[in-house]
Amino acid sequence: MTPRRFYRIRQILDQRQPDLTVLADGIHKSQNISAILRTCDAVGINELHWIVPPGEKSGIWKRSAGGSARWVKPQRHPDSAIAVAHLQARGMVLYAAHLSPTAVDYREVDYTRPCAVVLGAEKEGVSTAVRAACSAEITIPMYGMVESFNVSVAAALILAEVRQQRERAGLYDTGSRLPKDLYERTLFEWCHP
Amino acid sequence: MTPRRFYRIRQILDQRQPDLTVLADGIHKSQNISAILRTCDAVGINELHWIVPPGEKSGIWKRSAGGSARWVKPQRHPDSAIAVAHLQARGMVLYAAHLSPTAVDYREVDYTRPCAVVLGAEKEGVSTAVRAACSAEITIPMYGMVESFNVSVAAALILAEVRQQRERAGLYDTGSRLPKDLYERTLFEWCHP
Ligand SMILES: C[S@@+](CC[C@H](N)C(=O)[O-])C[C@H]1O[C@@H](n2cnc3c(N)ncnc32)[C@H](O)[C@@H]1O
Ligand SMILES: C[S@@+](CC[C@H](N)C(=O)[O-])C[C@H]1O[C@@H](n2cnc3c(N)ncnc32)[C@H](O)[C@@H]1O
Repeated sequence: MTPRRFYRIRQILDQRQPDLTVLADGIHKSQNISAILRTCDAVGINELHWIVPPGEKSGIWKRSAGGSARWVKPQRHPDSAIAVAHLQARGMVLYAAHLSPTAVDYREVDYTRPCAVVLGAEKEGVSTAVRAACSAEITIPMYGMVESFNVSVAAALILAEVRQQRERAGLYDTGSRLPKDLYERTLFEWCHP
Repeated sequence: MTPRRFYRIRQILDQRQPDLTVLADGIHKSQNISAILRTCDAVGINELHWIVPPGEKSGIWKRSAGGSARWVKPQRHPDSAIAVAHLQARGMVLYAAHLSPTAVDYREVDYTRPCAVVLGAEKEGVSTAVRAACSAEITIPMYGMVESFNVSVAAALILAEVRQQRERAGLYDTGSRLPKDLYERTLFEWCHP
């Protein structure tokens, strides 16, 4: 561990956004989850929430072991009610990335408040149950023949907007906003591979 | 074919950007190419250039058959010199998406001129030979521990900026800019599945 790396790790922890997360609703493909985790890390998200019914395979994480799953903690929930309750208890509003005629342009909502971006699976999209709990449905305009983006691409486009809003609001310059014990524990883990 | 679909297809063709493309340099994973094709379609790119040495498997396209490869034509080149010459002969400048200390922020270059965004493979990145032909190296800032985005995510982030610049410049409102024969041929193909 060089002093430079130690400094870098602290800087990254200082920029983590504990009031921002992603909720993956029914996303099964490991490659997609893996790419989403990696993007979460790059915008300062420190945990990803994930609805996985009990009994579903979790080998899905293998591909990202040693990679992004080390920097962004995946947190599983057995069903959507539990996941939604968990996030709402933390004061977050939910935005569903969803293709519907009533959805608003994804650049029109406020991501500087505590919030979770909800993403759906390739075929099913975000479930009706989860959508019912969302404050807004957001959509990314498309100019082509294909009707939707790959989910990890949609995640990245929305999170780029989130990051821009949070940069402007100074949310990356506040110094650490992680709870002190989580900060210390993470610092220790990241420094001792 | 409903009149509404016919109208939609013409609208999409009118918004195609023949002076904009992506050059995939050494990208092998079909899932990545597939996600990139889909994003290309959504920003109005009508062909994707792809460096594939002769003899390399092309089964890579199968996953997107019937999907994006129908709307965005993949064009293979046997080596980087041929690919670069082809794009430059069409008056395009090349921008390499690349993580280097000398790269500029990806929002700082001009994508309204005829241009190709060059993307590299997971391990190798954009090759030295291709980089030598590029007008600029562009990079997307990251706040996390992971050093790079998944390539299809990087493609999407850059193309979102490209789209925004081209929207502001009115390049989606010019009416068709495709060569007339290509326009007619594509219209026919898309209307007759
Ligand atoms: C492949 S899409 C799902 C499409 C699904 N067939 C539907 O109609 O909902 C996978 C997920 O990516 C996100 N997504 C993809 N394209 C999007 C867009 N243009 N706007 C908003 N979200 C999008 C959504 O979260 C969606 O559930
Ligand atoms: C996984 S990255 C390659 C990383 C490779 N090990 C390197 O150091 O070049 C795959 C491709 O995605 C693009 N890419 C990923 N993250 C990027 C970033 N932050 N800025 C610019 N391009 C990026 C580049 O085209 C890169 O070649």
